[in-house]
Amino acid sequence: MAITSFLPPRRILMGPGPSDISPQVLQALSRPTVGHLDPLFITMMDEVKSLLQYAFQTKNSFTIALSAPGSAGMEACFVNLVEPGDKVIVCRNGVFGERMRENVLRCGGEVVVVDDEWGAPVSVDKVEQTLKAHPDAKALAFVHAETSTGALSDAQALGALAKRFGMLSIVDAVTSLGGVPLLVDEWQLDAVYSGSQKCLSCVPGLSPLTFSDAAIAKISSRKTPIQSWFLDQTLVLAYWSGEGRRSYHHTAPVNSLYALHESLLMLQQEGLENAWERHQTMHQKLKVGLENLGFEFVVDEAYRLPQLNAVYLPQGVNDGAVRQHLLKTYNLEIGAGLGGLAGKAWRIGLMGYAAREENVALCLSALEASLNTSK
Amino acid sequence: MAITSFLPPRRILMGPGPSDISPQVLQALSRPTVGHLDPLFITMMDEVKSLLQYAFQTKNSFTIALSAPGSAGMEACFVNLVEPGDKVIVCRNGVFGERMRENVLRCGGEVVVVDDEWGAPVSVDKVEQTLKAHPDAKALAFVHAETSTGALSDAQALGALAKRFGMLSIVDAVTSLGGVPLLVDEWQLDAVYSGSQKCLSCVPGLSPLTFSDAAIAKISSRKTPIQSWFLDQTLVLAYWSGEGRRSYHHTAPVNSLYALHESLLMLQQEGLENAWERHQTMHQKLKVGLENLGFEFVVDEAYRLPQLNAVYLPQGVNDGAVRQHLLKTYNLEIGAGLGGLAGKAWRIGLMGYAAREENVALCLSALEASLNTSK
Repeated sequence: MAITSFLPPRRILMGPGPSDISPQVLQALSRPTVGHLDPLFITMMDEVKSLLQYAFQTKNSFTIALSAPGSAGMEACFVNLVEPGDKVIVCRNGVFGERMRENVLRCGGEVVVVDDEWGAPVSVDKVEQTLKAHPDAKALAFVHAETSTGALSDAQALGALAKRFGMLSIVDAVTSLGGVPLLVDEWQLDAVYSGSQKCLSCVPGLSPLTFSDAAIAKISSRKTPIQSWFLDQTLVLAYWSGEGRRSYHHTAPVNSLYALHESLLMLQQEGLENAWERHQTMHQKLKVGLENLGFEFVVDEAYRLPQLNAVYLPQGVNDGAVRQHLLKTYNLEIGAGLGGLAGKAWRIGLMGYAAREENVALCLSALEASLNTSK
Repeated sequence: MAITSFLPPRRILMGPGPSDISPQVLQALSRPTVGHLDPLFITMMDEVKSLLQYAFQTKNSFTIALSAPGSAGMEACFVNLVEPGDKVIVCRNGVFGERMRENVLRCGGEVVVVDDEWGAPVSVDKVEQTLKAHPDAKALAFVHAETSTGALSDAQALGALAKRFGMLSIVDAVTSLGGVPLLVDEWQLDAVYSGSQKCLSCVPGLSPLTFSDAAIAKISSRKTPIQSWFLDQTLVLAYWSGEGRRSYHHTAPVNSLYALHESLLMLQQEGLENAWERHQTMHQKLKVGLENLGFEFVVDEAYRLPQLNAVYLPQGVNDGAVRQHLLKTYNLEIGAGLGGLAGKAWRIGLMGYAAREENVALCLSALEASLNTSK
């Protein structure tokens, strides 16, 4: 059959990302492409940097949007900051902690894992004991907001521990940035990466990234070359530095950066604190509704992410059939369980532009109807 | 000053990429985002694969669009196909051959360089002598169309040489795909990568990539792990395989893939041969006009790329001033010289949607006026 233009329906995206995107951001995305060395584009890149500094709450001069998805942002942190033989403490309480561990190994680093249950936050006590036992470790890596479970860890306490033991912290903020408090400078975090398609509600494909001066110092004093050319941030730095002429490293994803600029601008206009509060308010409404429908949360209330609600499937409910019904009947996407929670839980996202009254109302009403259908 | 929405002008992009993008592709780009595991999106990805197979002229089942720019596509080839200690012959006749060399080194490979002058094609004779002298080499890497100079190398002859000596070929087709003949299967090329923002006239940020069965066999029989997690194609394969359920690797850049789908569809509708002919026809018109203005080409006519016209600056012309004038007065972007040609040459692109009568006419007329201004 002949291929024709792809005309997607208007889905309501309440999974673990990509999240709903505002019409304003999609409009920015399709503005005319300019060259990646165009003076106007470079001015826009400076604004993206400044808006990212606001979103991350940092003054780090190395604050960029990497030209690839969040998983490349994760890898950028490890390949730049970990040298062969470096010992890294990795906290693992879900899929993305395990991915961090794999990254360290692929850089030739030595990993010490601190394990916590899926659905639990990283145990600050366990991490402290581990740091005491491994004072020679170079970095502490953890996930702020575990997208696979919806658990929030105490990035402030973990960042302080890393500093106390003279280690760098490497922080996955893919799902946290813009959805819950994240104060990079105040919490003394060293390397923090995120994704464009979660609480920033931009198109997928970019990874906001910030390095502290301590992280930059580590990169500058490396004894071994960085194994990736594409992710070598010493090469990218020249393009983003804003000091005179930009040198060419790779062709920036111009249009995606238009969209990021717009979504960060919307965040700034709303105000970070207001955005955090909106996520919390919508979460509370969704929570009450889900509990009324008999759902139980995977994560204890004290550590629960407002923007990612992981709930166990009620007994006898057919996972795939219900999600397919939601998609076909309501154009509503919710997320399946990942890893150990596959088939056992759903992940309902309230990320960025998706955290709105109409989405909560639709989701509860559609879920209720679909559960009844599937019984 | 407060940051506001970025409203770029409508530039005419006749540099080395990104190239002009058709309104149809920009429209596709901004269609509503769906989830990257949505059944409709997966069907579209199958179509992207099929359209890429057409563009590459290959039946390779591993034919994908990598979620990052062409330089990541280059790195994906090297990290997957080169193991520490592997000897690789790298042909260097411009910026991108040098980048290939750096990639091999960062993978722990051993490099043998075959050097040719900037502006010259890769010498098939020299490569043959080198392969004879290094029969233990595992791969031959070369750039089909050098974006830094506008020189076209004989990928067919080089591919045949690699096969004769039992080596894999790794081919940079960033600027060639869609602009000049590239017959991956007929020429027996093993690993070929390109970029979305050149002759495909899609937004920058994606890298079309195809691996032959021989390349896949090499990956499958590796003795050492692949150093990159993000670029490990054994992990990505599962998402693109089309065999039943897609497994999650990373979040695909959904909207950019809409745009690629549309631009590949336009290429298919025009027909590859017609697209090659259009590039050639427009190049001939531009060439006559440039020569009338007194320009000399960097590359001999026999090896000249129609889609990238590198010409020496006429004596006494101010490089930056003229390009700035073209941009400010006509919204016309042409490319500066790169590397050894910086300040000495311009690169005028006629890539994809930019290869149109109106662009050629505007470029010649605007150049003539601007040169007069600068004298």
